[in-house]
Amino acid sequence: MTTTPSSPIEQLREYLHTTRLLGTIHSTLYFDQNTVMPAAAAPWRGEQLALLARQIHQRQSSREFQDLLAAAEAEVRPEALAEEPAQAADRRHNLRLLRQELERQRRLDPALVGRLAQAQAQGYAHWQEARARSDFALFAPALEELVRLRQEQARQLAEPRSCWETLAQVFEPEVSHRRLAELFAPLVEGLPPLLERAAGLPPLPPADWDLPDAAQDRLSQALLQDWGYDPGRCVRARSPHPFSCTIGPADFRITTRVVPGLPFSSFLATAHEWGHSLYEQGLPRSDDHYFPWPLGEATSMGVHESQSLFFECRLARSAAFAERWHPRFCDALGRDAWGGPRRFWRALNPMRAGLNRVEADELSYSLHIVLRYELERALLEEGMAVAELPQRWNDGMERLLGLRPANDAEGCLQDVHWSEGLFGYFPSYALGHLISAQLSEALESELGPIEARVAAGDEAAIIAWLGRRVWPLGRRVNGEELVERLSGRPLDAMPFLRHLETKLAALAC
Amino acid sequence: MTTTPSSPIEQLREYLHTTRLLGTIHSTLYFDQNTVMPAAAAPWRGEQLALLARQIHQRQSSREFQDLLAAAEAEVRPEALAEEPAQAADRRHNLRLLRQELERQRRLDPALVGRLAQAQAQGYAHWQEARARSDFALFAPALEELVRLRQEQARQLAEPRSCWETLAQVFEPEVSHRRLAELFAPLVEGLPPLLERAAGLPPLPPADWDLPDAAQDRLSQALLQDWGYDPGRCVRARSPHPFSCTIGPADFRITTRVVPGLPFSSFLATAHEWGHSLYEQGLPRSDDHYFPWPLGEATSMGVHESQSLFFECRLARSAAFAERWHPRFCDALGRDAWGGPRRFWRALNPMRAGLNRVEADELSYSLHIVLRYELERALLEEGMAVAELPQRWNDGMERLLGLRPANDAEGCLQDVHWSEGLFGYFPSYALGHLISAQLSEALESELGPIEARVAAGDEAAIIAWLGRRVWPLGRRVNGEELVERLSGRPLDAMPFLRHLETKLAALAC
Repeated sequence: MTTTPSSPIEQLREYLHTTRLLGTIHSTLYFDQNTVMPAAAAPWRGEQLALLARQIHQRQSSREFQDLLAAAEAEVRPEALAEEPAQAADRRHNLRLLRQELERQRRLDPALVGRLAQAQAQGYAHWQEARARSDFALFAPALEELVRLRQEQARQLAEPRSCWETLAQVFEPEVSHRRLAELFAPLVEGLPPLLERAAGLPPLPPADWDLPDAAQDRLSQALLQDWGYDPGRCVRARSPHPFSCTIGPADFRITTRVVPGLPFSSFLATAHEWGHSLYEQGLPRSDDHYFPWPLGEATSMGVHESQSLFFECRLARSAAFAERWHPRFCDALGRDAWGGPRRFWRALNPMRAGLNRVEADELSYSLHIVLRYELERALLEEGMAVAELPQRWNDGMERLLGLRPANDAEGCLQDVHWSEGLFGYFPSYALGHLISAQLSEALESELGPIEARVAAGDEAAIIAWLGRRVWPLGRRVNGEELVERLSGRPLDAMPFLRHLETKLAALAC
Repeated sequence: MTTTPSSPIEQLREYLHTTRLLGTIHSTLYFDQNTVMPAAAAPWRGEQLALLARQIHQRQSSREFQDLLAAAEAEVRPEALAEEPAQAADRRHNLRLLRQELERQRRLDPALVGRLAQAQAQGYAHWQEARARSDFALFAPALEELVRLRQEQARQLAEPRSCWETLAQVFEPEVSHRRLAELFAPLVEGLPPLLERAAGLPPLPPADWDLPDAAQDRLSQALLQDWGYDPGRCVRARSPHPFSCTIGPADFRITTRVVPGLPFSSFLATAHEWGHSLYEQGLPRSDDHYFPWPLGEATSMGVHESQSLFFECRLARSAAFAERWHPRFCDALGRDAWGGPRRFWRALNPMRAGLNRVEADELSYSLHIVLRYELERALLEEGMAVAELPQRWNDGMERLLGLRPANDAEGCLQDVHWSEGLFGYFPSYALGHLISAQLSEALESELGPIEARVAAGDEAAIIAWLGRRVWPLGRRVNGEELVERLSGRPLDAMPFLRHLETKLAALAC
């Protein structure tokens, strides 16, 4: 807490600092809600969160904020001449990002913001009921309203982009249909043959084993210890759905769950969420200087997901990792349920199409995303009626994955995103796979094969590389720029497809 | 969240509702800080809490609040004629309590409030260091400043009471030196002979046993299950110091710790904190209607403590309880370390003087309080120099308890309260013992002996009595009025001394 800020930029920093305090208070309540809060407390917690959300929104669009930002932009500081050019460039970049966000906030009619919040709450409630009864019709009117309001939101934002593109910017800056077409076409073409090839893999070991809660916990704890977990700055907890969150410049938390009958679930989720958390921990804010500034933030959901997927799929599902961890899992279980480390590795990589996105492996996952992206575009930009969604979903699943859901619950009602009108988010998951694969190639060109590093128990070198090359960039580059800077080439799908082919070939041996 | 409040009283209720939301957000952060937050997160959490404290203080003294309260006071509602007299009386009472608190806030110079907050932060830091090094001189200057500021606070409050009395009002409404002299004199006279008599009790069973963490946890869980714990509204957690807190109208939390070598500590702390929590759960706010109004709050720290002490000392340390729980403790330990239920009961009641307040049993506890009260009065009202405190403390311990601390850490630096300038708080602990004892007599006159109820496993009847007669009163009565209403007599020390004599006699058998 600086006393008597002396310049417009410092006053702006103070203002952002307080906004960030409120944001992380909100995160603390969210964490508490999902890890310990008793069920009956939900309505009161909802009111607490809504109060904080109003305060944060008010600060982000207030006249005071506008004036502070304008003053900082107008400032020509005498000492700026003596300043490092990099520092001056950072400051300009930070102000540019703040201006962009403020203008977005200002273009929105507050009445629309209020209606959206209401429609999201109602959408979520109706979706929960519709999913429980597996009856899309119960959710359809709420979804229609959300589509309408999001279209109105995009109109008010008035960006030189399509409706869907406009809505997707907050998740993936500069994303466009043109680029997604280029990136996803090879997936639509390349993944189905790979799935067919995977059907010929050696059969999966029998799933006749499970691990006690405490044993899963010990394995996850051991994994984190290997991967640099610092209990002085980090927290692990349990929640119904795994997540990662940052509550302060030295307060990083991840949660997982134990699912009976899915004994890898908690362990792999630990790897996944720890990837998210390491990215957050590595953002350029270690001395708190950057914590309130945009450049210190994660650059996109795709990059965030690339880091979690890297730790889950490239490390924890690798052959070398399976080799090293097979004895630990045998110890935890009291026997070898798989028949050696190679079949243990096979168990970690089912490579099978399924109806559910969240449970999909790296081979089929992106096809779930392509389907959702197609349908969002149809809903928002091509006049598709909401009522057509179940049929279109089921047809798409059959076309892309060769499976047809038996009902809406395992079909178009499975994800929470649309219940809150979150359109434009899904592609980030698939981009995460592509970014992870291309960054992996860049990493391997410097450090040698990931498999060799993992075999040597030297994940530290890999983590250090990411901590040097990827995480400190924050919002200086968007997802595509990050990949191009580190790999020397624009992002494309080939590294990901190559990785899958290599893995399938190895699994077939 | 009511929409468009239609009357001044409803507008005031909305305002208080928001203030309460902020207060319980503060409590959530406090709970998180003490149960899961990683150590390195402390500075950021400090800033979050300070921001909320500023917001809450601002709301409690704002012009808007003053206007809303004045409008509610001035309101003569047409429907008030049709209203139940009890409802109208409650409303007047609520407004009176709000007016009293607002006037207290308004009389304070904001500059003093700021200086106090700073002095408390510094006092706490210096006290921690002083205690770690057992060197009072390191804390003395900070304490001098706190005494000076609290004296100034009492002057600004300008109540027709002494300085100490004025400061104690927030903990114990209407408390006075005159009453404390009447209540404590019998303790100073009566407790030392009882302590002497206790020295002749059969020796304590050997303390050569301890319980694993998980076993202590199971016993505490079983206790709570017997005593009406509802996991849908309540949470148990671990923290360095046990506490109870209320985070919403249906969100009640208690924490305990496991202390190696003190295997009863966590179990008895569970009983104690659950007493606090049941009182909070029983306050008249079940439908949320009273949550923002003063009448729905705990009436005093003494009454709060009377409830926690009742569950700890009158129930969990009773002979009948020991009889019933001895087998469970034998099961948990795998053997009978005590030699039967009566000696197990003896182990639960050491009845020995010690140097430490927190670890004191019900026989010696109040003498620790008398000492602190004498010293606070001397510091604030009788011109005693801060530098004299260690000597006066040690002399007082010798006079009251027959023991002399070997150093400041086990002497006048042991408690946190003075480090934050909390003068006037300590007597509530002793009042808790007196109130618990007198309410117990009232309860027994209706339900028969507590021991008989506990022997029958019928604590539910006892809890129901408290839930009917004590908890729903909230701030309608202060501590003394509560006792008089339920026992028909003014509060005095005799029920407590009688209880101790009876217990000593039983322990001697």
